[in-house]
This record gives sequence, structure tokens and C-alpha cells, in this order.
Amino acid sequence: MATQGTTLEQRIRLIEDQLEIYNLIASHPPSADTGAADYVASVWAEDGVFDRGDEFAKPVGRAAIAGGSSGPEHHRAIEHGIAHVAALPCVRVTGDTAFAISYLQILVPDRVGPMFEVPNHGSSQGFHVHRVSANRWDFVRTEDGWRIKRRKLRSLDGSAPAREILRDALTPSGAR
Amino acid sequence: MATQGTTLEQRIRLIEDQLEIYNLIASHPPSADTGAADYVASVWAEDGVFDRGDEFAKPVGRAAIAGGSSGPEHHRAIEHGIAHVAALPCVRVTGDTAFAISYLQILVPDRVGPMFEVPNHGSSQGFHVHRVSANRWDFVRTEDGWRIKRRKLRSLDGSAPAREILRDALTPSGAR
Amino acid sequence: MATQGTTLEQRIRLIEDQLEIYNLIASHPPSADTGAADYVASVWAEDGVFDRGDEFAKPVGRAAIAGGSSGPEHHRAIEHGIAHVAALPCVRVTGDTAFAISYLQILVPDRVGPMFEVPNHGSSQGFHVHRVSANRWDFVRTEDGWRIKRRKLRSLDGSAPAREILRDALTPSGAR
Repeated sequence: MATQGTTLEQRIRLIEDQLEIYNLIASHPPSADTGAADYVASVWAEDGVFDRGDEFAKPVGRAAIAGGSSGPEHHRAIEHGIAHVAALPCVRVTGDTAFAISYLQILVPDRVGPMFEVPNHGSSQGFHVHRVSANRWDFVRTEDGWRIKRRKLRSLDGSAPAREILRDALTPSGAR
Repeated sequence: MATQGTTLEQRIRLIEDQLEIYNLIASHPPSADTGAADYVASVWAEDGVFDRGDEFAKPVGRAAIAGGSSGPEHHRAIEHGIAHVAALPCVRVTGDTAFAISYLQILVPDRVGPMFEVPNHGSSQGFHVHRVSANRWDFVRTEDGWRIKRRKLRSLDGSAPAREILRDALTPSGAR
Repeated sequence: MATQGTTLEQRIRLIEDQLEIYNLIASHPPSADTGAADYVASVWAEDGVFDRGDEFAKPVGRAAIAGGSSGPEHHRAIEHGIAHVAALPCVRVTGDTAFAISYLQILVPDRVGPMFEVPNHGSSQGFHVHRVSANRWDFVRTEDGWRIKRRKLRSLDGSAPAREILRDALTPSGAR
């Protein structure tokens, strides 16, 4: 972090910004795994864009994004036990905008196969890692705190688009 | 974070609190995967409660919790190579209490099946995801730093209790 | 964190240090999964040591480490879709040095077996957890920011060396 010519208050604000963004990213899995439409709407900017790739709808605007995260199709995934697991993100704040690059795993409980027991940790049929994605989040500061302006994710499956996203973590500005 | 009417010192303290809680949550897997009874005792409040669900014992008090994390049954899991993997938690601090919602994966090395090689990353039989849990941690500030007052976890297997825990991440107070 | 006898500025600096180290650890997976030699060189100390265990080369020095992270063998892993996933690390800063203990998962897309579909989350053949490792990172403050001085990792497979690394998270100094 650059500290030259900045006041203590500015440095504290930058830290608070980074921590608030950690909490925004950390609250995504709980909202996705419960289908919390109101919460999802509350953390997106009015004109937000959620881009999950060509195989999915690309909702634009808070209401459309919240709707996609809580529809009947999504609730079938929840009843199945879907779990979104967020890795440690790389976060960069610049004034009133910020971006983060993060990995996200999607796991689902296995429903077939034998039960497996681990001493002192119960038995289960295990979980299946359905997807690992590279995510770029763009945030904007509002009067009510940070909001998600855009989120773009691509599956890490050996194709180029996910690696394009990951490269944004390697420059301070996130631009290439 | 609310910054109205707070001093710089208060804002710094709140940040330090959040970071100390990150470290507490991040040190759980190393302590669990080594069976470090003394360390476990040192991070729990005297009257702590560890609730892992009905299929497990529910130890109350620092000594009982540390004992459960280091007994012979637990050491069999450690020798097997158990790994607890902590996701990015959602942390909220309010004065002298705090809570966090986190996901935890439990992985164990596969002992059957073929070896699989990845270029430049060696060969292995792979790991099995045994469990993914939703965790609620309640913390209390003491003279010696933050301590765990209560931890409740439930398996994310499609049943309702884990989702109940996750919903706590979606309100500032963690109450519903 | 100790706050006795420290100024607000010192406390802020310690926080900035911890957050900068989070970003260093969080940027490792993007650099590894894209083979970004220049970036890798930029975050290591000139005399850095990367110790992955006896089955791998042990590069010493910035250039050798960057080379190992971007050679043809590594690019075969990238084309296969390798994903490094970083868990929440335990970070301790002391003056101009710091260390962190972290878990790292390495996942690769499955290329055999049936496609599996999750409602609202597409279809895939799933991912295989190839490796889970315990990592100790040692950092040093330089005029240009924090750099990696040493990174040691061992596979969590039930053998003792990984648990040795994890134990470093359980003492404030990381020494035993």
C-alpha cells in the first residue's frame, strides 16, 4: 500500500474498505446456498452485471440478479446440498472503486456409493467438486457502503477465459 | 463499518479485532490436524460450548473441548492424513463480542485406486472430500484477547440446519 | 495484537502489513495457474528458497523460482486446467519479518467419467483434488514492499513433515 502523502484517516479507510470487501465476498456463499434474494439485491449496484459465461443467462440489474439466485431451479440445487466455498481473494482498492480476483469451488454431496467413515469425524458418502471458477468482482463505493458492480466468472477447465481473469490479479490496477 | 462518532483509535481497534478473529479461525485447522490440546484450550473461553450436531458428543468447557480434539480416536484421523480447510469467513465485530460464519472442508487422502500424475505437481491417489460444514463461531473479548465462546457446525448435506447457520451471515447482528 | 506503547501509526502499519501479506498469498494461485514468470520473480526476495520436498527440485533465487513456475512442464499442467486454491492463512507479523501458515489445494478437472449436472450450475465431469499441502511462508520487508524469502510445503498425506509445518501456526513466533 502507498502511504506517502496520505493521512492516518485515509489509511484506516483503505483498510476498512478492504475488510468490507472481504465480508462481501465471504457472504456470497451463504446467500447463494440459501437463495437469499433480498440479501443478494442489497449487495449489488442498481445497474450490476453478472456474467457467468455463455452457457448461462447474463442478468443485468439488481432485481434480475437477485431473481436468478433464488428461482425454483436454484432451489433444487440448494435442496441437493450445494455448497459454494470461497478461497482467499486478492483485493485491490483504488479510491471509490475496487476489484477482487477469487477462486470459488462448488461442491455437492455424493448420493451414490458407499458410506466412508473417518475416526472422530462421522461417516458420509463424500462430496463431489462440481466446478472451480475464476471470478473477477468489480465494486463501487456508495453512500451505503460497497456494492458489486460487476461479477464475471469462468470455469477453470483448461480453456483460456478463466486464465484471462486470473491475470488481472497480477497487476495493481487489474487492467492489462 | 460505521465510522460516525468513532475515533481513529476505535476504528483501528475494530480492524485489529477482525484480523485477530481471522487468525483464530485460520489456526483451527493446524490445531485440529495436529491434535494440539494445549493450543485448543488456550483459544476457548472457560465455559465454551462446541456443538457438532447430534451424532457427536457436545463438550462444554475448555478442558472437555481440548480433550475431544486430542484423544486417541482423533489421532487415528490425524495419522490417516485428515486436513481441515478453512474458507474465507464472514466476520462481524460488535464491541466486546463478535461472530463469524465460515465454511470448512474436511479432506482425507484416498488410499485405494490408481496413482494419478499432474505435470510438475507429482503423483498421488488424490483426496476425498469427506465433509463440508457450515460453522457459526461466537467470540468474546477477554483481557488476554479474543476467545471462542461457542462454535456450532452442521453438515451441508441438503438438510435444513446448515442453511439455518448460513443465514446468520446475512444480517449485521447475526440474529434472526 | 500488542498495542501497549505503540502509536496509532505503528498499529496501522502492522495492519497494512498483514493485509499486504494476505494479497501476496492470494496472488500465488493466479500466478501459478497462468505461469506468470515475471510476476513470480517480482514477489520473491533475490535469495529466496522454494522447498517443495524431496521429490521436486529446490530452486534457490528469484530467477530459478520464476523459471520453475513457467517452464514447459508447468504449462502442461496449466493446459490441463490445474487450479491452486488458497485457504485462509494464519499470518504473524513481527517488525520487518513475517510468516504465514496456509493450506493449499490443487485441483484438476476430471477428463473421464460421466457428465454430472447440478440445477442452475451447469454440467461437468467434476474436479479431482490432487494434493493438499501445508505451507510455511517467510516474508521480509523491503523498500518495495513485502517479499517471499522462503516457502516450504509438504503434502498432507498422513506423514509427519506436513504436521511439523502446521505446528508453527500455534506459537506466536512460529518457532518451536
